[in-house]
Amino acid sequence: MILSALLTSVGINLGLCFLFFALYSILRNQPGNIPVYSPRLFGERKTEQEDEFNLERLLPSPGWLKRAWQPSEDELLSITGLDAVVFMRIFTFCVKVFIIACVIGVFILLPVNFGGNQLSYDFSNLPNKTLESFSISNVNDGSNRLWVHFCAAYVFTVVVCCLLYYEYKYISLKRIAYFYSSKPQSHQFTILVRGIPAPSSSSFSEVVDKFFTEYHPSTYLSHTMVRRTNKIQSLMNDAEKLYRTLGRLKSKNTRQRHKREGFLGLFGRKVDVVDHYEKKLEDIEDNVRLEQSSLAGEEVPAAFVSFKSRFGAAIALHIQQGINPTEWVTEQAPEPKDVYWPFFSASFMKRWIFKIVVVVAYIAVTILFLIPVVVVQGLTHLDQLETWLPFLKGVLSLSFVSNLITGYLPSLILQLFLSIVPPVMILFSSMQGYISNSQIEKSACIKLLWFTVWNIFFANVLSGSALSIVNIFLEPKKIPSLLGEVVPAQASFFIAYVVTSGWTSVSSELLRLFPLLYSFVQRPFAGKDEDDDDFEVPSIPYHSEIPRVLFFQLLGVTYFFLAPLILPFLFVYYCLGYIIYRNQFLNVYAPKFESGGKFWPIVHDSTIFSLVLMHVIAIGIFGLKKLPLASSLIIPLPVLTLIFNAYCRKRFLPTFKSYPTECLIKKDRKDQEDPTMTEFLENLATAYQDPAMMPVRYSRNVDGRSSPLLRDVEV
Amino acid sequence: MILSALLTSVGINLGLCFLFFALYSILRNQPGNIPVYSPRLFGERKTEQEDEFNLERLLPSPGWLKRAWQPSEDELLSITGLDAVVFMRIFTFCVKVFIIACVIGVFILLPVNFGGNQLSYDFSNLPNKTLESFSISNVNDGSNRLWVHFCAAYVFTVVVCCLLYYEYKYISLKRIAYFYSSKPQSHQFTILVRGIPAPSSSSFSEVVDKFFTEYHPSTYLSHTMVRRTNKIQSLMNDAEKLYRTLGRLKSKNTRQRHKREGFLGLFGRKVDVVDHYEKKLEDIEDNVRLEQSSLAGEEVPAAFVSFKSRFGAAIALHIQQGINPTEWVTEQAPEPKDVYWPFFSASFMKRWIFKIVVVVAYIAVTILFLIPVVVVQGLTHLDQLETWLPFLKGVLSLSFVSNLITGYLPSLILQLFLSIVPPVMILFSSMQGYISNSQIEKSACIKLLWFTVWNIFFANVLSGSALSIVNIFLEPKKIPSLLGEVVPAQASFFIAYVVTSGWTSVSSELLRLFPLLYSFVQRPFAGKDEDDDDFEVPSIPYHSEIPRVLFFQLLGVTYFFLAPLILPFLFVYYCLGYIIYRNQFLNVYAPKFESGGKFWPIVHDSTIFSLVLMHVIAIGIFGLKKLPLASSLIIPLPVLTLIFNAYCRKRFLPTFKSYPTECLIKKDRKDQEDPTMTEFLENLATAYQDPAMMPVRYSRNVDGRSSPLLRDVEV
Repeated sequence: MILSALLTSVGINLGLCFLFFALYSILRNQPGNIPVYSPRLFGERKTEQEDEFNLERLLPSPGWLKRAWQPSEDELLSITGLDAVVFMRIFTFCVKVFIIACVIGVFILLPVNFGGNQLSYDFSNLPNKTLESFSISNVNDGSNRLWVHFCAAYVFTVVVCCLLYYEYKYISLKRIAYFYSSKPQSHQFTILVRGIPAPSSSSFSEVVDKFFTEYHPSTYLSHTMVRRTNKIQSLMNDAEKLYRTLGRLKSKNTRQRHKREGFLGLFGRKVDVVDHYEKKLEDIEDNVRLEQSSLAGEEVPAAFVSFKSRFGAAIALHIQQGINPTEWVTEQAPEPKDVYWPFFSASFMKRWIFKIVVVVAYIAVTILFLIPVVVVQGLTHLDQLETWLPFLKGVLSLSFVSNLITGYLPSLILQLFLSIVPPVMILFSSMQGYISNSQIEKSACIKLLWFTVWNIFFANVLSGSALSIVNIFLEPKKIPSLLGEVVPAQASFFIAYVVTSGWTSVSSELLRLFPLLYSFVQRPFAGKDEDDDDFEVPSIPYHSEIPRVLFFQLLGVTYFFLAPLILPFLFVYYCLGYIIYRNQFLNVYAPKFESGGKFWPIVHDSTIFSLVLMHVIAIGIFGLKKLPLASSLIIPLPVLTLIFNAYCRKRFLPTFKSYPTECLIKKDRKDQEDPTMTEFLENLATAYQDPAMMPVRYSRNVDGRSSPLLRDVEV
Repeated sequence: MILSALLTSVGINLGLCFLFFALYSILRNQPGNIPVYSPRLFGERKTEQEDEFNLERLLPSPGWLKRAWQPSEDELLSITGLDAVVFMRIFTFCVKVFIIACVIGVFILLPVNFGGNQLSYDFSNLPNKTLESFSISNVNDGSNRLWVHFCAAYVFTVVVCCLLYYEYKYISLKRIAYFYSSKPQSHQFTILVRGIPAPSSSSFSEVVDKFFTEYHPSTYLSHTMVRRTNKIQSLMNDAEKLYRTLGRLKSKNTRQRHKREGFLGLFGRKVDVVDHYEKKLEDIEDNVRLEQSSLAGEEVPAAFVSFKSRFGAAIALHIQQGINPTEWVTEQAPEPKDVYWPFFSASFMKRWIFKIVVVVAYIAVTILFLIPVVVVQGLTHLDQLETWLPFLKGVLSLSFVSNLITGYLPSLILQLFLSIVPPVMILFSSMQGYISNSQIEKSACIKLLWFTVWNIFFANVLSGSALSIVNIFLEPKKIPSLLGEVVPAQASFFIAYVVTSGWTSVSSELLRLFPLLYSFVQRPFAGKDEDDDDFEVPSIPYHSEIPRVLFFQLLGVTYFFLAPLILPFLFVYYCLGYIIYRNQFLNVYAPKFESGGKFWPIVHDSTIFSLVLMHVIAIGIFGLKKLPLASSLIIPLPVLTLIFNAYCRKRFLPTFKSYPTECLIKKDRKDQEDPTMTEFLENLATAYQDPAMMPVRYSRNVDGRSSPLLRDVEV
């Protein structure tokens, strides 16, 4: 790609960004869009819907920027919870990293690269220069200037490791502080026990009661058995659908009744439909009640066991309970609203087999996905495209079209394909037997991250067929020189990718295009009041957002000394991301769960991986550039980085897994003085109840206003 | 190697074995050899030393075989502890495996191999046939007979996995049963805490007391600080040496005094020497006492913390204590006599760095050791030796000499070199910061096992230079075909290795050659009584015995379908080993520690490794033998084996790490009824005392008979 193509792309995308910003600042002021742009406040009924029209509402204004910038981190913490704060720390961390990288890259490495003359292109015409003249490829083979790159790699690694250390430390302390400041919550007092041994005569419930009364007599409080409720769940879904249709029909009907009181006879049939539906709904409800009572016996060998203190729960959690380690398997209970009921497989063997199946399926999907990627990759090589589709020759000779195709189209298509992947990963993770949405999202996040790294980075870089890529990984010795050869060659593609996919995705996040369109389409069909009932504040899909943000970091770190031209664009990306996601957390997203910053270790690991990848590429490229000494002297760097990572895992990771005795006991002691604790402990027994086992009350409720489902039962 | 050479070797070694057996049965009957052949009974003063001479004592008898065979496993358990029983289970397990292997190998595979004619040797002369005509190399390329080998690999893997599963289950149940039947022991109630945070004003001891009183008020009992005692230790060693010299001098002197009472003046100088030594000893003791009292302040940030119950200790052990996971690091305390005091490094960082250093050193030693191995390997290729050392040509042309050299010498030299390695591995492991001899031995055992596999198996098989071997492992794709090519070629070497090294080592174990020689040399110099004082019952060095036994298993499993001729020899080896080690456990070795069978997981992992190695070789060899379908169909086998292993790790391994709540609480409850528990708990406070901090009392003791050192203070 030549410089002018890049500038075209930058121009288009900057324009798009400003357009999005302007559109956003106008659209968010329209009262009808409040559920789209401030659903969080709307959900809390904090916004006043002023219907009067004024001209100011139609002018773009930067006021939202200021409002998004202002709150301090503590305020953000109190509003959005720790997960959001940790998510924002990814941006501040990356901004710090790329400020330093920019300084080194643009002011030191870029001039060195540009000063070389390895690539003998025409020097006079700057716009037609390929981007490669700014990359390390342009430095002469064996030149001593490469030692500048060598030093840069060392300095950058040290800086990033220091930043990583302080960030890990900061977040782990935040996590502890957050725990100290939290109110008593049911999941702190509860563990999930799976693999309860099959009782010979009594029920599972009795077995659980007997076991914990015997071995934890002083701390055991109560337990809730898990039951198989797929059938009830589907019945309840039917009921819910019916209830909605009925509600809509009725609201129409009553209006029509009021309107055409005299012509009541004409609408007799319609009233009959309502009656018919009501009857059906009642039938279903009777069915549900019947199932609920009969299901009392269909217990799954899993239970939520609650204890009188957090420390009591921790004791049962951390020490193996039964002699057979595959029985009485304990794990930390999630928040009640976070429990993922459908795939509640309880047997050790079943979960274990599912896990293996998922691993196989994941690998298959990851490898098969290469096919669309390879096709897209062809688009950046215009000449190849022309040979494939000769009839396009005429169109492609227009420079604007060719710039658009090489600069924009490939990443757009990739983006489309990628949007299918997150739900698939969520499905995989939920099959693995995780019991909470937060765990599923975390696992899907990791899966998606490696999927992205493999399918966007490696597949693009290696751009061969799937089989040849796999072959390369069977010959690890050749990896550095291979990567050293192919990674710099793809610099222009990834610079374009950052500008197009990165900038656009983050500014379209602001605009919330799909919810906006949905609300436009839905508005004419639905009554205003009904909207209120169904309204659900959206939550941020960490599993798809974090891998995306981290992937750009990987690009920045690996291309840091290869093609420093990418760094300013990444810096802009993270600055944009920082302000936009801050705005979204304050206005749009409400936390669906609170994992207490458990996503951070993923960020840490991914950064370490990026660094090591950079080192491996450096080993290869210094070899190719005929500077074998530098190539060998780089080798200690990945080793030291991995040792640093091993230390961090020892030093910080345990804090993200569970809380230490010190914290638990301090918190328990503080609670003893709290008079509301008795009530809290009493409520604990009913905290973990499957929503399918809740009493149904649709039919009595059809005319009422309150929400029909009691899914979010919090204690 | 040709068949006659093998038969020579078998003959020599069978002869040696019978000679050893005969010698043993004679020597063990000599009263002077009781400390060599029955030190265990001698230590317990159970043998009566009859000095009368009779002819029977000089005749070999098989009575000891019967006595070694008789005791049941439960009797063995009560006499020798669980570790010895688990060690013996390796032999029974291997005997079972190789019975089945022998049946398949000798009756099915051997005829198939022999029936092929890939190797066009002379068929008429059986003794001159090379051993390769019995191996898979002799089967014709692409022959359908190779499917027999294919099926054999599947059947054998399934059989071994079943045996492994039942063995793991059996031993884990034994471990639990052993725990239930054990008396209260101090290490069950104690944990070791390291990384105690540096106190600002008070001492470490106060910090520990405060911490555990605050967070474990109901279970905390007492603690013992660890102190830096290198200096005292060396002083005490000096004192001990002096004490021994003095004792010897005195016993001589008094005899001489009694003898020549009249000439006392002549011996005045000698008495002075004794006085002089006595004075010196007293000086050292004063020094020790001074150091002991002054050292009260030199605490190391580590302590043994005791609890009132086993469950209390488990709670502190399994839950992270402090907020910083590198502080208050807990681990299970070893038995008091098992504590390894010298390398008591306590800081997290220091231990961690040492660990990395040891890993690097271990890899260096393992790779550098290739040099002697490659030299030895040259000896099996006689022609190569002749070119190196042409003057040997005359001697080598004698068939007996050449048979001896190819059949015996290489493994003898290897054995000599290998005997240096175990102490090095012990040193490495002790540097890693383990706190008990049992952990050090276990870690050294693992190190030595992989060392053996790498340096005997791979180095012999690949027989290239060190560098080329490392290169091969950087190209994993080529490994199967490479192994398939070179492993069968070394079959004859390993058959000879089993016969020479295996049979001889196990029967010389019976004879205890070095202790015997030592006792012969020492006897004239030492008084009989003094022997009594110093006498220490030896303990079996698991770290060098287990890898050896397992290495033969690896040979058997990998060569199972390649060269089934090895199997009968291995079967004999394990039968010999079974009876001989049984005898040794009953008569010679006393347990130095009791790890409760923690060595078994090593055996399991090593067997799984052998199986997978066999599969990899099978993939390669079926490819080379032009049966690619079989080569691909073998691939699921290692995958399934590894999945099986993963399941076993989940199912059984936790039992070998710690005891579950169920066991701990049951055992604690049983203790509550025990009236001796109060006394036991009182003694707990002093159970873990550094021997260097014990009161010294040499000088007062010089004339007494009792043991001068109180190292083995048991509670």
